[in-house]
Amino acid sequence: MAGKIEPRVLKGFRDYLPELMLPRQWMIERVRKVFESFGFAPLETPCLEYAEIILGKYGGDAEMLLYRFTDNGGRDVALRYDLTVPLARVVAQYGDLPRPFKRYQIAPVWRAEKPGKGRFREFWQCDVDIVGTESLLADAECVQIDSAVMRSLGIENFTIRLNNRKILVALGKFLGLAAPGEIAGVLRTIDKLEHQGIERVRELLRSDNGLSDGGVSKVMDFLAISAGDDPVGEVAKLFAGIEEAATGAAELGAVIEAALAGGVDPENLHTDLSIARGLDYYTGTVFETNLTDLAGFGSVMSGGRYDGLVAIFSGRDTPAVGISVGLDRLLAGLVELEKIATGLRAVEVFVTVFSEELAGRSLAVANMLRGHGIKTEVSFQAGALGKQFKTAARKGALVALVIGPDETAAGTVVVKDLKSGEQLTVAADGLPETLRRLQSSARPS
Amino acid sequence: MAGKIEPRVLKGFRDYLPELMLPRQWMIERVRKVFESFGFAPLETPCLEYAEIILGKYGGDAEMLLYRFTDNGGRDVALRYDLTVPLARVVAQYGDLPRPFKRYQIAPVWRAEKPGKGRFREFWQCDVDIVGTESLLADAECVQIDSAVMRSLGIENFTIRLNNRKILVALGKFLGLAAPGEIAGVLRTIDKLEHQGIERVRELLRSDNGLSDGGVSKVMDFLAISAGDDPVGEVAKLFAGIEEAATGAAELGAVIEAALAGGVDPENLHTDLSIARGLDYYTGTVFETNLTDLAGFGSVMSGGRYDGLVAIFSGRDTPAVGISVGLDRLLAGLVELEKIATGLRAVEVFVTVFSEELAGRSLAVANMLRGHGIKTEVSFQAGALGKQFKTAARKGALVALVIGPDETAAGTVVVKDLKSGEQLTVAADGLPETLRRLQSSARPS
Repeated sequence: MAGKIEPRVLKGFRDYLPELMLPRQWMIERVRKVFESFGFAPLETPCLEYAEIILGKYGGDAEMLLYRFTDNGGRDVALRYDLTVPLARVVAQYGDLPRPFKRYQIAPVWRAEKPGKGRFREFWQCDVDIVGTESLLADAECVQIDSAVMRSLGIENFTIRLNNRKILVALGKFLGLAAPGEIAGVLRTIDKLEHQGIERVRELLRSDNGLSDGGVSKVMDFLAISAGDDPVGEVAKLFAGIEEAATGAAELGAVIEAALAGGVDPENLHTDLSIARGLDYYTGTVFETNLTDLAGFGSVMSGGRYDGLVAIFSGRDTPAVGISVGLDRLLAGLVELEKIATGLRAVEVFVTVFSEELAGRSLAVANMLRGHGIKTEVSFQAGALGKQFKTAARKGALVALVIGPDETAAGTVVVKDLKSGEQLTVAADGLPETLRRLQSSARPS
Repeated sequence: MAGKIEPRVLKGFRDYLPELMLPRQWMIERVRKVFESFGFAPLETPCLEYAEIILGKYGGDAEMLLYRFTDNGGRDVALRYDLTVPLARVVAQYGDLPRPFKRYQIAPVWRAEKPGKGRFREFWQCDVDIVGTESLLADAECVQIDSAVMRSLGIENFTIRLNNRKILVALGKFLGLAAPGEIAGVLRTIDKLEHQGIERVRELLRSDNGLSDGGVSKVMDFLAISAGDDPVGEVAKLFAGIEEAATGAAELGAVIEAALAGGVDPENLHTDLSIARGLDYYTGTVFETNLTDLAGFGSVMSGGRYDGLVAIFSGRDTPAVGISVGLDRLLAGLVELEKIATGLRAVEVFVTVFSEELAGRSLAVANMLRGHGIKTEVSFQAGALGKQFKTAARKGALVALVIGPDETAAGTVVVKDLKSGEQLTVAADGLPETLRRLQSSARPS
């Protein structure tokens, strides 16, 4: 054996140890069930692709963030930067996919960014997208999924903030900003409203975006309408004569109507005309989601409509709308809200082994419990029950079972509650029911 | 928008499209449930690690197969080659993990091998391992997991072929092969028995391993015992006086006894003294698994005990035993055996939209069905029902629902069987039950 190698992970990378994986897995399963209930199919694409594919959408800064290298065959390759570009490739590559194509993908992506609190170089994205329809019912479906995901995780206090980028294009025209770059600049400033406050936004509108006092005042009127009672109706009036305002307001109204018909609670859905989303490729509906009980926590889920992406590979515009769940941030939020079921455990029942001769009986009982869907670990050591109880507690088990010579003869099992230390003797046959009763208070619903 | 980029994947890589992902996801969920029923916890490690970590176990040929490069920070990094080396790192790095440490991981690994039928450069491994115990109950647990995985997938006709590497070490001594390399060579030749036949093995023992006629004859005696009624008893006699033979036979016997006590059917468990497994690092128990009804298909699951691996990072030997499910080969086997439930579909119910005005009613019914766990897609197009039925069929849905003005008024829904074309009208309230009845014949059990 060669010299010892130091065990460590790369900067900005991390292990998800069982303690973190158990709630994460629980959350992913619930999210997946919601996606599937809406008829989305799973897709997996390679982690590694031709660099020209991964770069398709991105230039400039993003290129610096790629994990890009030349493989043994001399190919220019890169780890994927997101899940949307591979989706666009798939849609262009396979002509026979059913349309509209509805897929979900839950997988890691890589960006060589400066690591920070909650920011990693390898992180998971969890996306659903609908490709191939302009129908606003698809936009509304993404909003419904957003709400259904939250409720499946036991969260009722959340706010989906909804907007339409066309209204922001109209704002650009209203301000007399003709160049797309200028409009984008104002949108980026507006996007800072939540994090940096209204005063800072005023300043930036002057300094960064070169707006006059009149222009800043127009933006403030716009933001006031956004916070008012009828933003959809008011915005059409404020921007009277600007076509995109009317279209955007009509679309926004239609998405809200369909989302409510599809079961979204009006309490959870708010129009917010200041929502722009960072990415420039959104073309219509945009939305993000906040946990009402965690002020300043940031968005945990977001999405919108983007119509230009697939064209990179197919040569023609293909309408698409999607939503992305911020898995790790949402998990952090759930932990902070104490919404993660405390009953999550890798081992529910620990079966001790009384002696080597009686191991077979413990193995048989464990086998029976597993058949009932109970997470059961059997001790690998015989005898010294005290030590076995310690292992059981260390594993987080709820109860330990003891099956000695008396129990073997009588067909019974001693059930020891590892918290209270209480013991009761039950017939082996009735064990699954007894254990389920004990677990029901500790298990996630 | 820049010029069109050709949509394609790298040689040896592939997309898992929904058609392939649906059965794969179904299989992974079942396998995961089995792992969890034995008290294993999930673990995720980074795909990218320091090259010295990934190379820890491997030298020579494997080094050529690594996806290895220098990252933007000048670090020598590589995509992981397997899941076992990262596990060894984790065990050495985190001292406070509960012992024995039982984890599972289902994740992709990368090897720049020549691609071929069923051989990819990115492929998934699905491993469970128990680290930190020498107990043979742990070896037996891996055999039980093997059996439980098969049965959870509806397979009853399978053969777990079990051996102990110590018996093969004894064979080396029996043949007078002192150097570890020579013994390993004979083991590699024996490993070819299933694929290349006994005559070819005879030849190779002479040509590659330099055995005399006497030596070849001893190997043949050994293989004959392996095929006999009492291999465990006979091998101890054949190798009388060689310590490893007695130890190996005793271990083999103990593993069989515990596996049977733990519920493995004797029909599924066979001693096969010729099983060596390719990897040199196995030190005790080794086993592989074949589908009895698919001769020559190769092993779909395998594992064994390896005690030296963790030492690379921790500096001290740590006993470990594990099992690896060959996900993609097993899936191919299930397809060939027609064990994949034909009822797997991304969309079970397709809800048509009669008209834009009535869209709300369709959205509400779909929302109700999703709440009952039924995979429901709503049409994004209103009107033209014939076209909507075609989309529904294309999506693989079992039934389409129609909710027109009459149905809306009466609180009913028309259920159209997309295969037979039959229609029936039911009360909206009774819909989930009606649909479950229709699905029960098509859904996987």
